[in-house]
Amino acid sequence: MKNFVLKGDLCWSRDPQHLESRKNGYLVCENGVSAGVYETLPEKYSAYPLLDYAGKLILPGFTDLHAHAPQYRYRALGMDLELLEWLDTHTFPQEALYQDTAHARKNYARFVEEMRKGPNTRGCIFGTIHRESTEILMELLEESGLAAMVGKVNMDRHSPDILREGTEESAEETIRWIQEVQGKYPHVTPILTPRFLPSCTDALLEKLGKIQKKFHIPVQSHLSENRSEVAWVQELFPQSKNYGDAYDHFGLFGGENCPTIMAHCVLSDDAEIALMKERGVFIAHCPESNTNLASGIAPVRRYLSEEIPMGLGSDIAGGTRCSLFYAMAEAIRVSKLRWRLVDDRLAPLTIPEAFYLATKGGGAFFGKVGSFEEGYLLDAFVLDDSRYDNIGEYTIAERLERAIYLSEDNEVCHKFVEGRQLF
Amino acid sequence: MKNFVLKGDLCWSRDPQHLESRKNGYLVCENGVSAGVYETLPEKYSAYPLLDYAGKLILPGFTDLHAHAPQYRYRALGMDLELLEWLDTHTFPQEALYQDTAHARKNYARFVEEMRKGPNTRGCIFGTIHRESTEILMELLEESGLAAMVGKVNMDRHSPDILREGTEESAEETIRWIQEVQGKYPHVTPILTPRFLPSCTDALLEKLGKIQKKFHIPVQSHLSENRSEVAWVQELFPQSKNYGDAYDHFGLFGGENCPTIMAHCVLSDDAEIALMKERGVFIAHCPESNTNLASGIAPVRRYLSEEIPMGLGSDIAGGTRCSLFYAMAEAIRVSKLRWRLVDDRLAPLTIPEAFYLATKGGGAFFGKVGSFEEGYLLDAFVLDDSRYDNIGEYTIAERLERAIYLSEDNEVCHKFVEGRQLF
Repeated sequence: MKNFVLKGDLCWSRDPQHLESRKNGYLVCENGVSAGVYETLPEKYSAYPLLDYAGKLILPGFTDLHAHAPQYRYRALGMDLELLEWLDTHTFPQEALYQDTAHARKNYARFVEEMRKGPNTRGCIFGTIHRESTEILMELLEESGLAAMVGKVNMDRHSPDILREGTEESAEETIRWIQEVQGKYPHVTPILTPRFLPSCTDALLEKLGKIQKKFHIPVQSHLSENRSEVAWVQELFPQSKNYGDAYDHFGLFGGENCPTIMAHCVLSDDAEIALMKERGVFIAHCPESNTNLASGIAPVRRYLSEEIPMGLGSDIAGGTRCSLFYAMAEAIRVSKLRWRLVDDRLAPLTIPEAFYLATKGGGAFFGKVGSFEEGYLLDAFVLDDSRYDNIGEYTIAERLERAIYLSEDNEVCHKFVEGRQLF
Repeated sequence: MKNFVLKGDLCWSRDPQHLESRKNGYLVCENGVSAGVYETLPEKYSAYPLLDYAGKLILPGFTDLHAHAPQYRYRALGMDLELLEWLDTHTFPQEALYQDTAHARKNYARFVEEMRKGPNTRGCIFGTIHRESTEILMELLEESGLAAMVGKVNMDRHSPDILREGTEESAEETIRWIQEVQGKYPHVTPILTPRFLPSCTDALLEKLGKIQKKFHIPVQSHLSENRSEVAWVQELFPQSKNYGDAYDHFGLFGGENCPTIMAHCVLSDDAEIALMKERGVFIAHCPESNTNLASGIAPVRRYLSEEIPMGLGSDIAGGTRCSLFYAMAEAIRVSKLRWRLVDDRLAPLTIPEAFYLATKGGGAFFGKVGSFEEGYLLDAFVLDDSRYDNIGEYTIAERLERAIYLSEDNEVCHKFVEGRQLF
């Protein structure tokens, strides 16, 4: 079904400050792309099949800008640790298990199913260092109908033997992986994924910079998440002005030909923020993770004001829940605490702002994604919010607020990615 | 069924620092009271019916020390406001609707059903100023099988006409209410409930102090939640040393014959904390609400160190979720942010501490409640945590951690209150 019409209570984001909504509206899909929202269905679309979801919310699918698929299995464990201890205790031993492709297939299937059934329609996802298992993850995501960028992780130092590559090996496996998967799937593509600076030698980063230039693929990594981590990066890259500058030295920090996502940015200083802005680096704001690992609270209001591109990340398993509804609630909550306790010049996030981040903000990393405006890829889901006892009484904006705080995955009753109906 | 045995993976709290657990253990119930936990079932209990929940977690029921039943209906709305504006905009108009007993019956039934199906087995709950509707709430709670203390609210100033009593009227209705409900229900009892100091004149508070002495019922209210509120109380009670001292002036702040719960205590100063400790006032820590309404983060580590009695509150609808699993997760999370951002002398809460607060800590307001130790009322629920892919791999303590972050109400598959099986 390439052309169809969705009917229901539509809500989408025009910009961070403005929600758009249309009660009992019509959203037209043509060839996987929005042909706009209408109060009355134009005659020219009247022959299209009409999917009538009257009384239900229809929202743009969410883009999870940062998640670790292999960590889904042990989510919500070891949350009493900070980042570096948590990596050593839980993450590295668990990720090492993905050398076994059978383990990978079984456990990645669970992660993909969790993502498939909830409100997220696409994501930027870390695998592990293992090429074959990462390819399995990509295959499973494509089969699920979701859209994603997926990274084979690079790590050649500061991790246990069972989860560390040789420098040459890491680069070679990455090239082989890119050659195997580039262009293979219509909706799942590779993204270069140095884990974070402490995991990669200068030599490896240099090779990755060259690989990026050669294959023109985007980049994802971590930036300025935790105090001990930032101090460690300063030790490891004494010549760099800041954490971001160290990535930049190797050509892995944005710019026109290197779309880049950096997760966290809790502790970025003025110079790093200026560099992100200059290079158009996307920030993946991961509020739940930053709280769980006691990293702190990113200055999201500042990033919005400076118009740095930004979306939300579940950061499974620093975060525990895939659904970006939860990330929106947490983003709002921690922004209130930051305002109250740290800096009252940075106002809390509003509902429209949090919604923007989960939809159009993060979606922009994939192009025209995350809105119902004409020309945007038709990612959408239908939410049955009747459990909250809403109907007939609340505005669509109020229903959105309630969904942010109350929704559960089983209330997502239909889902579309680029116009394909998943369920 | 007065005597029976529960079998499963048991976990309970000895004290804030120590979890107890027993895999494949036996919990014996005799006449609604725990007769202890056993690795092997003693011969003398062998004739009791055995309810075998092998592989599932069995935990003490949670005590929600602070919730507003009439606010359940509009939970997760107006979360962009602080306390006083939120009360005026949402709470007061909604609570006024409970003058209509049909509205009350319909909407209280929804709140009670939400509480019934989740992990909470008892709570201290605010109604509204309306005597008849409050009695309906008590009736519904008793019918549900839950245990509760319920308060008809007192308000004779600073609220709209539709939600304000005369001073005499408030006192008289309170007396009539107590006379009507005291001793009426085995598991639901009255608790005196001045809304908060700005809602009650000195004259009313004086009358309530006398009512408390006459009828020997406990007291619940709010304390030092929000900056504007605290400043307002200082204006209204210029003679008082602090917010708590103003309650105390009227005999409504703890002591041997006046068990008292105060919700929030975000901004309590040293003198107020000392007075709470002296009088044995229970704190209802409501982390989600304190974040949602941008009130701040209570210094829970300090309260634990000073051994002030304390439990958790959902604070529906400053909080959005009834389940105290969620309050536990939020309590841990905000304690990490407070430690990281405000005062690193107050260490974050641990899993055992948060679990203690939800069980034995808050349960203590009801007597021997919230543990499986011998002599404790048998409040318990069975949690099917198989969805998290745990079985055979994690310790009970680790499974508890995951349940705190991941559990959903529909995973509560059996529930017991004072030995009565609700489902």
